[in-house]
Amino acid sequence: MSQSTAGAPARLAILADGQLTYHDAKTAFGVIRYGTDPVVALIDSANAGRNVSEWIGEAHSVPIVATLDEALAKRPTALVIGIAPTGGLLPPEWRALLLQAIEAGLDIRSGLHQFLGDDPELAAAAARAGVTITDYRRPPERRDCAVGRDHLPGKRVILAVGTDCAVGKMSVSLELLRAAREAGESAVFVPTGQTGIMIAGWGVAVDRLISDFLNGTVEWLVEEGEARGDWLFVEGQGSLDHPAYSSVTLGLIHGATPHAMILIHQPGLTDHDFTHVPGKTFPLAPLPSFIALHEAMAGAVAPSRVVAVALNTSLIADPDEARRVIAATEAETGLPCDDPFRFGPERLWPRIRAAVDALPWVDAG
Amino acid sequence: MSQSTAGAPARLAILADGQLTYHDAKTAFGVIRYGTDPVVALIDSANAGRNVSEWIGEAHSVPIVATLDEALAKRPTALVIGIAPTGGLLPPEWRALLLQAIEAGLDIRSGLHQFLGDDPELAAAAARAGVTITDYRRPPERRDCAVGRDHLPGKRVILAVGTDCAVGKMSVSLELLRAAREAGESAVFVPTGQTGIMIAGWGVAVDRLISDFLNGTVEWLVEEGEARGDWLFVEGQGSLDHPAYSSVTLGLIHGATPHAMILIHQPGLTDHDFTHVPGKTFPLAPLPSFIALHEAMAGAVAPSRVVAVALNTSLIADPDEARRVIAATEAETGLPCDDPFRFGPERLWPRIRAAVDALPWVDAG
Repeated sequence: MSQSTAGAPARLAILADGQLTYHDAKTAFGVIRYGTDPVVALIDSANAGRNVSEWIGEAHSVPIVATLDEALAKRPTALVIGIAPTGGLLPPEWRALLLQAIEAGLDIRSGLHQFLGDDPELAAAAARAGVTITDYRRPPERRDCAVGRDHLPGKRVILAVGTDCAVGKMSVSLELLRAAREAGESAVFVPTGQTGIMIAGWGVAVDRLISDFLNGTVEWLVEEGEARGDWLFVEGQGSLDHPAYSSVTLGLIHGATPHAMILIHQPGLTDHDFTHVPGKTFPLAPLPSFIALHEAMAGAVAPSRVVAVALNTSLIADPDEARRVIAATEAETGLPCDDPFRFGPERLWPRIRAAVDALPWVDAG
Repeated sequence: MSQSTAGAPARLAILADGQLTYHDAKTAFGVIRYGTDPVVALIDSANAGRNVSEWIGEAHSVPIVATLDEALAKRPTALVIGIAPTGGLLPPEWRALLLQAIEAGLDIRSGLHQFLGDDPELAAAAARAGVTITDYRRPPERRDCAVGRDHLPGKRVILAVGTDCAVGKMSVSLELLRAAREAGESAVFVPTGQTGIMIAGWGVAVDRLISDFLNGTVEWLVEEGEARGDWLFVEGQGSLDHPAYSSVTLGLIHGATPHAMILIHQPGLTDHDFTHVPGKTFPLAPLPSFIALHEAMAGAVAPSRVVAVALNTSLIADPDEARRVIAATEAETGLPCDDPFRFGPERLWPRIRAAVDALPWVDAG
């Protein structure tokens, strides 16, 4: 079985102390935007008194508080670790707060590589308090090498790929999911990372898998997805040219054997996300050649095509300028393009749908 | 630290019962051919009374015996698991023999994914007998994401890549290592798999790593290699188009950022190694486009070139025919080509050396 969460809805407090940026607090923003459990407070002493809506819009109002005690006044039932740092270690200065939260009766939800449930001090405290620590990156028991599974007839598998980490691959998948469902399709999100699992309640954090079983686990995760719907939006990870994470990206491509890919890019970004090594830069690839590289690499195992480019135009303040960049990207790549987060997925989705349905390797069922 | 073995030379018995084929007993043949510890017996009841030299030549005489008792008569000090099955599980029918070997005072050396040292029954038996169980696939403590390290001046990093698994990537690297050393170079083999580690006494089985740390671990493994020599022959794994193992291959390419690659191919092979799924076939790529794909993928992070093709001509009985295939491959790819195992590495090595030294991204130091 893939990772899954169960039980009654929780009331979440999210911890992102001192790290409330789009990059560092990716998990916090993802859970607030797309999760189903209500978020009652975000803990960040640097921004106490403000509201998360200042970052991500009026639809998402979450008060920011300075301390756990203030958060407890909002009666949360669980504390979520809201960051996804390189290497996945718990910031040591957060330990005391976690222990306090556990003693206050909160469950702990973490997507770190460092499993908090295996930490003797935290585990003992959780046992005393009768609370649960959930590590969303814990790998499944199954250890399967890929078997070359064929997709079922009638299924369409769409993988989000990106020019970099943290450019919005998950958000694009979730926006398109919503559009597909609103259009009446049986659509499902296939989570492959800790934030996606927190949001959807199932999935596998594939960057945690033993490498030999990466392609194979993605393969059966897609099989699970096909049991849940007809249009599969598989969450992407990393990028095919990221020096640190490319192998995870290729495991997704060759494990999911997507019928189609959507390339996500953030205009204005020129270098890869490499914040863990200050001063080190790796330039992003130009879109047309990067699209060709994806199709060549995917095609080495199963044919696939990049059918659309989704832009994250958050670095472009002026909406008209963002629309100009979208048009220029359409011209540059010859592909449908939009910012489904900023301008809604309703225009991009039918163009993707038509492009996927026209692919010769899609079995209409 | 990477995996390493220490202590006095052992006298090895190798277990490959019922699995003595080039494919299944890859570890057995590798250790016999290239290891430094003497191998006193190979256990395979199906071929008892024969000699391993019938498979791999007169230089490698190892008697094949039917039982552990017969092997014990040769006074081994350690038993090596000689197979590398898909999924890496211990054949259940071998457990009794392992327990007997432990009780007889033999250390156990295993490259399986299933860690024998963590098996309660085997571990308890080993503790009672005072013997050591070494799991060569056990991952290192270090968990590092790649940092974009530059190679030191004067170093040349050469990665073996292949058109498939089990075509001879390790053997080619070890043959070229020998030629380079005989030519007076400071050359080192960088082991990335359990058999390579058994042979060289250090390294990391990269297919066992957590995917997020694959590229990064390969990176520091190469750093260790650079501390040991100037010409690095990095052991390859899988193939870039293998449905099950491609992500491991890409992790090696982007983690090692090799100055050059050598492509290993076995003429006569038309489909990928997919023995774990009978009837499932994935065709091998044509060499020229596959070479281009490697250079494009590597180049997405750091420039690299395929500088030679090494053929494993073991499927071609007639040596003259093998030489014709080598010449045809040179014509097809425009690259130096030979079978360094069958015909010796002495002709291919200087051509590789010259090609690598001429690469504009090699820093002569």
